[in-house]
Amino acid sequence: MSVISPALPTYLSRVTSGGAANFSCGGAAGVSASISKCARGVGLLKAELGEGGRRACAKKGRGQTAVIHEGRFKDSWVASLASPVTGPSDSGEESPAEETVQRCGWAIGVDPDVSGALAVIKGDWPECSAQVFDSPYLQASVGKRLRKRLDAKAIVQLLRTFNAPVGTTAYIEQSIPFPKDGKQGWWSGGFGYGLWIGILVATGFSVIPVPSILWKTHFELAGSSSSKDDSRKAACELFPSLSSMLRRKMDHGRAEALLIAAYGKGLRRVQEISSSDMT
Amino acid sequence: MSVISPALPTYLSRVTSGGAANFSCGGAAGVSASISKCARGVGLLKAELGEGGRRACAKKGRGQTAVIHEGRFKDSWVASLASPVTGPSDSGEESPAEETVQRCGWAIGVDPDVSGALAVIKGDWPECSAQVFDSPYLQASVGKRLRKRLDAKAIVQLLRTFNAPVGTTAYIEQSIPFPKDGKQGWWSGGFGYGLWIGILVATGFSVIPVPSILWKTHFELAGSSSSKDDSRKAACELFPSLSSMLRRKMDHGRAEALLIAAYGKGLRRVQEISSSDMT
Repeated sequence: MSVISPALPTYLSRVTSGGAANFSCGGAAGVSASISKCARGVGLLKAELGEGGRRACAKKGRGQTAVIHEGRFKDSWVASLASPVTGPSDSGEESPAEETVQRCGWAIGVDPDVSGALAVIKGDWPECSAQVFDSPYLQASVGKRLRKRLDAKAIVQLLRTFNAPVGTTAYIEQSIPFPKDGKQGWWSGGFGYGLWIGILVATGFSVIPVPSILWKTHFELAGSSSSKDDSRKAACELFPSLSSMLRRKMDHGRAEALLIAAYGKGLRRVQEISSSDMT
Repeated sequence: MSVISPALPTYLSRVTSGGAANFSCGGAAGVSASISKCARGVGLLKAELGEGGRRACAKKGRGQTAVIHEGRFKDSWVASLASPVTGPSDSGEESPAEETVQRCGWAIGVDPDVSGALAVIKGDWPECSAQVFDSPYLQASVGKRLRKRLDAKAIVQLLRTFNAPVGTTAYIEQSIPFPKDGKQGWWSGGFGYGLWIGILVATGFSVIPVPSILWKTHFELAGSSSSKDDSRKAACELFPSLSSMLRRKMDHGRAEALLIAAYGKGLRRVQEISSSDMT
């Protein structure tokens, strides 16, 4: 069942035009099937992939989850992103303390490329919904050329419309440029990754960088035999009510943002769960 | 006159240890001399350098300033950063509207390199003060190596301690990597630049990227004959009470952050003003 996405400010209409949708688990047979199996334990409890610092089990309490995260991080920088900023706010008052942070089953997924997207999954099965938004961008002069560059203000505005609980975890694909890419590609990869992390941290999200190999392995999309089309297919399976948003080849950024958020929540594809059930 | 910097949270002690100081124009003869001449009009009214989108005159009203900014920007992306985010806040309420934005003569200066710094100049002459902070960083694993990476959370916390008026302008050196730098250098340059812009925009600052050639020309530091030592010397002239913070070669990031903020405010060096007075 597709649901109209929340009204957004006019300045965001370009971003969401044709780019936002909801799915409601309760009314969507395909979705409820895939997630209900997951919720029975196979997906969530076997979703332990380690290195990325993802939570081991969505059912664990907050304290336990935090310990698992921190034990996994290879370096202090990644660990530093995994809890929201605390301390004096603009008003001089303390921002919401650790104990008031609510996770509420939300997960944000970010493909930080300039042609990427932002996905949000709200709530746990059966009361959950998903949305995906193309990343807003503008034109920037680079030498004699115009290039797409992420629109920082529109991203901040978009995130604010979610009213996400402070401390909600945002899973962002780690920026690992291809060695064959040119220097401009490396600069742009670093810029987009830095911009998203800066905005997410300053806005109160807890950020977890996820190497692409982790979420791709989780959804059986790793390896040269898997293409971006396979990512779209996997996202359609998990979120059938969003399949109209994932029809075109160019929608792979949307698919990847959804899969990164789904990875963060420990969701699995139906056939994966079925094969797990057989063992 | 050096003044103790405001108390900061313990987690910022590393950042500010030996890295923060104030100067007070009223009590510092050198500073008040250089800035008072500037305030007599020579510096401010001839500070019109164009391309960077800097305000033409610090004495102009807010509306005029904004018009001048937008007319100068080469591209929509740069223009988009030059006013603070408005729209629904986390609480669902509107964030401070345009008319409530106060500039109050503040200017932030940022050298976005990982070894860079953040400077803040508060107020207009003669009631102004300046501070500079090394950019906080942490260690990150990159392949088999540990590299310094900007600490997003500590930057957010540091900015919050300023209690800067929403819409305060932050001038950030534009990231233009050297063609001879390696790809990792290009990635890092993009990352630091993106991270700072993301944090500043999400925190409510109005961001203006400044090509280094602009602020260097303004302070007669452009060209191959000028070194980083000359930047430290210029910063010491403008902010003599901070000279103890600028003694070492490695303090050039602090000097550049101060000069970028000073450029944003239209300040000039004493000898520049004197030579202008002669014409």
